[in-house]
Amino acid sequence: MSDSRIQNAALRGKIMSADDAAAFVNPGDNVGVSGFTGSGHPKEVPQALARRIEAAAGRGETFRVGLLTGASTAPECDGVLFQVNGVAFRTPYQSDPDCRNRINAGEADYVDVHLSHVAQNAAWGHYGKLDVALIEITAILDDGRLVPSTAIGNNQTWLDLADRVILEVNAAQSARLEGMHDIYSVGLPPHRKPIPVSATADRVGEPYLRVDPKKVVAVVETNCLDRDTKFSEPDENSRRIAGHILDFLQHEVKKGRIPANLLPLQSGVGNVANAVMAGLNDGPYENLTAYTEVLQDGMLDMIRSGKLVCASATAVSFSAKALTDFNANIDEYRKRIILRPQEVSNHPEVIRRLGIISMNGMLEADIYGNVNSTHVLGSRMMNGLGGSGDFARNAYLSIFMTPSTAKGGALSCIVPMVAHVDHTEHDVQVLVTEHGLADLRGLAPRQRARRVIDKCADPRFRPALDDYLARAEKGANGKQTPHLLGEAFNWHLRALRGEPM
Amino acid sequence: MSDSRIQNAALRGKIMSADDAAAFVNPGDNVGVSGFTGSGHPKEVPQALARRIEAAAGRGETFRVGLLTGASTAPECDGVLFQVNGVAFRTPYQSDPDCRNRINAGEADYVDVHLSHVAQNAAWGHYGKLDVALIEITAILDDGRLVPSTAIGNNQTWLDLADRVILEVNAAQSARLEGMHDIYSVGLPPHRKPIPVSATADRVGEPYLRVDPKKVVAVVETNCLDRDTKFSEPDENSRRIAGHILDFLQHEVKKGRIPANLLPLQSGVGNVANAVMAGLNDGPYENLTAYTEVLQDGMLDMIRSGKLVCASATAVSFSAKALTDFNANIDEYRKRIILRPQEVSNHPEVIRRLGIISMNGMLEADIYGNVNSTHVLGSRMMNGLGGSGDFARNAYLSIFMTPSTAKGGALSCIVPMVAHVDHTEHDVQVLVTEHGLADLRGLAPRQRARRVIDKCADPRFRPALDDYLARAEKGANGKQTPHLLGEAFNWHLRALRGEPM
Repeated sequence: MSDSRIQNAALRGKIMSADDAAAFVNPGDNVGVSGFTGSGHPKEVPQALARRIEAAAGRGETFRVGLLTGASTAPECDGVLFQVNGVAFRTPYQSDPDCRNRINAGEADYVDVHLSHVAQNAAWGHYGKLDVALIEITAILDDGRLVPSTAIGNNQTWLDLADRVILEVNAAQSARLEGMHDIYSVGLPPHRKPIPVSATADRVGEPYLRVDPKKVVAVVETNCLDRDTKFSEPDENSRRIAGHILDFLQHEVKKGRIPANLLPLQSGVGNVANAVMAGLNDGPYENLTAYTEVLQDGMLDMIRSGKLVCASATAVSFSAKALTDFNANIDEYRKRIILRPQEVSNHPEVIRRLGIISMNGMLEADIYGNVNSTHVLGSRMMNGLGGSGDFARNAYLSIFMTPSTAKGGALSCIVPMVAHVDHTEHDVQVLVTEHGLADLRGLAPRQRARRVIDKCADPRFRPALDDYLARAEKGANGKQTPHLLGEAFNWHLRALRGEPM
Repeated sequence: MSDSRIQNAALRGKIMSADDAAAFVNPGDNVGVSGFTGSGHPKEVPQALARRIEAAAGRGETFRVGLLTGASTAPECDGVLFQVNGVAFRTPYQSDPDCRNRINAGEADYVDVHLSHVAQNAAWGHYGKLDVALIEITAILDDGRLVPSTAIGNNQTWLDLADRVILEVNAAQSARLEGMHDIYSVGLPPHRKPIPVSATADRVGEPYLRVDPKKVVAVVETNCLDRDTKFSEPDENSRRIAGHILDFLQHEVKKGRIPANLLPLQSGVGNVANAVMAGLNDGPYENLTAYTEVLQDGMLDMIRSGKLVCASATAVSFSAKALTDFNANIDEYRKRIILRPQEVSNHPEVIRRLGIISMNGMLEADIYGNVNSTHVLGSRMMNGLGGSGDFARNAYLSIFMTPSTAKGGALSCIVPMVAHVDHTEHDVQVLVTEHGLADLRGLAPRQRARRVIDKCADPRFRPALDDYLARAEKGANGKQTPHLLGEAFNWHLRALRGEPM
């Protein structure tokens, strides 16, 4: 196996155990790892590093690193390192429970950032020097070029910036991934040129990562599948939300505002997104395309059915069942799927040019259309912004969706004022809950409020929202955007005390 | 005069008085006018329209229109129309007192929107049908092409979308503006291509606006200068803020993070911006460039001194003195200045590519770096977002600046939580007041709060901010972003009651 996967002689000479490789990581190092939504992350060296960190703790020594990723990884990467409190700094998106708990306890500094900005920020030194790149790949060619794995993320940037490089060559990833990727460097100002992507299917780079072989300090052979990203069947609320979106898209097509095959789709993750994809797959559409950040089971279904003719992303993130299908039919899927660096998959230039239809989940929205995607009750970080800002801000159509209530109906997800703003009223065109869809395009704040309450709020919460708006309009702060600042967060405060909103 | 300025015979036949031209505007019409920051707006037809509206009111009839512009206009456009309450809908940026009062009284619906989005939104129908385009130009060529005036804004979009076109040919604008403009159409998805601007000086379109002559219902000859945009000398606070920014830029150059001639500059309007430009003009820089939205006296000084070799904008907005110089030396300035549609001057694609250094004013920032640019005390609209979001979000370096206090020191411009968010923590890298500069790049929220308080807050307000942060960190909401939601707006509430913060 190792012979066929690691063809470069010099790099074959660097093969060692995960424990030996982890010895190249020093306390205080910044480590840039591969990985995006539970795929393509390193599987063994992080565990070996966690053991080193734990051993150091046993000797009373502090051993912590900075951890820079593509997005969320998995228990064997974020999980093990945060369990031993081995991460002092983390960016960007995460979803691991131990990571989340450390962050919210103030035990790790977490910088939440637009995914398209990470590579640029790192290159510019916002996060300090990058000491180590730890990258999962599928194979090493004879000339040293690297065949990427199931996620690209910031891999080329980490390989470029790091002093030392550790490669995990994962035999569990299909060797036939080769050719699916398109690595293009955006570069840094003042030397940037137009990114020549004018359609989702455009390939503009080469299918390999490149690394200076002199920087490679270790090559570790692994054989471990990506995380099984469970794909749950849509529930009733998700199906209703999806129904409203599908009706709306059909209406926009009828009005001639978007083409019959829509515009390239971007979809966040989760139940509602799955329901929308299922609905599109059953719908009247042909020749759909996707320009998104992560490709999940729903879009794979649409490729299989022939509805989706091209999907561009930075990673795939499948259930075990979908992964089996993906690997079995990869030669066909390779004709339809392009994996790009996240700086390109999420680039405002390409998103604005293509005219994306962007669909993302949220925690809460307020009556004026400001959206909170990240902070529970305005303080506790959930997962992070991800690419929602990259897409929503530059999309042709930006849609945010959520069930109208949370905690079994105790909390309203439509509130007078969100307690944290990730997407301002200027970047939110459409809000959807199971009760309906509020098209906010071209509306002034008072009109937006009326429509959001009427279309999206749970009927049980509407009287209180109506009352807030009516009193705000009459009050001292009843101007362009009426608010009662003294009670704007009363609902959140009640929830903080464990009372219903 | 009219012969030389209006060379097209067919359009010469449409010459009429402003009053006759205004008769082509009907109650309920949407009117797209030229004009950006007090320049290039129509000077006479809006006044004639206001007289029509007033006469209708005298007969007990309602006559109101929708008014779409480039940005702010002037008393003889926004002013006269809002004085007679003749505007039911207004977008985007405005700065007229009568306009502002109507908006905040709820008497006109105002949609505040990123300036780069206006053309796309209008083309897509967000604002309904565009009935009339009312555009100031400098001349009409023999073949019907139009020489633009001192602002491009959304002019080509209005000419394309409107059913009826009224042209004001302003003899007070220099005929030698011809050739300064670069009109390029971004188009609509799915047919967009890369915008081929890779440097501020790149010309990619043609210097003329185009109109279907059959749509032109009236041509009105005017002879009226643009608004005299007063240029006040920077005060002490402005000079201090500028000093911090100049020190910071010099530090970034020394660190090798930006080139010796910096990166293309974007600057908002006002005292502080003027002070920064004056400082750069006196500084060690050569071969500076600007990719901005409006060119004011400060940048003209820098072109004259030779420091600024190229400035791209969508409008010029000068004091009377600077305008005299501009017109006297226009053949030289034309080599250094390019005026583009605001969809291009503010386009995220170009801004991200060039790596802009973006500097904008604000009303208030909070300790976590969220910025309020528009809503006084969270409700009263000041002017609007303008291009601040287009630039800040996509800039290489996004700087927001304000004096640390307002109302003679009674109000702190650094608050626990802003009462309206226009720019989220994700899009704000640097905050500056006269007390110092907070570089927030790569910092987590608690670190950002510490730095903002220490560097930017007025010392008299620091103890209260320290206290808020300390108690928030210990409270139930002391997670990733510590807040005390029950008192986050106490300062604003006191200000609403007319008490000091």
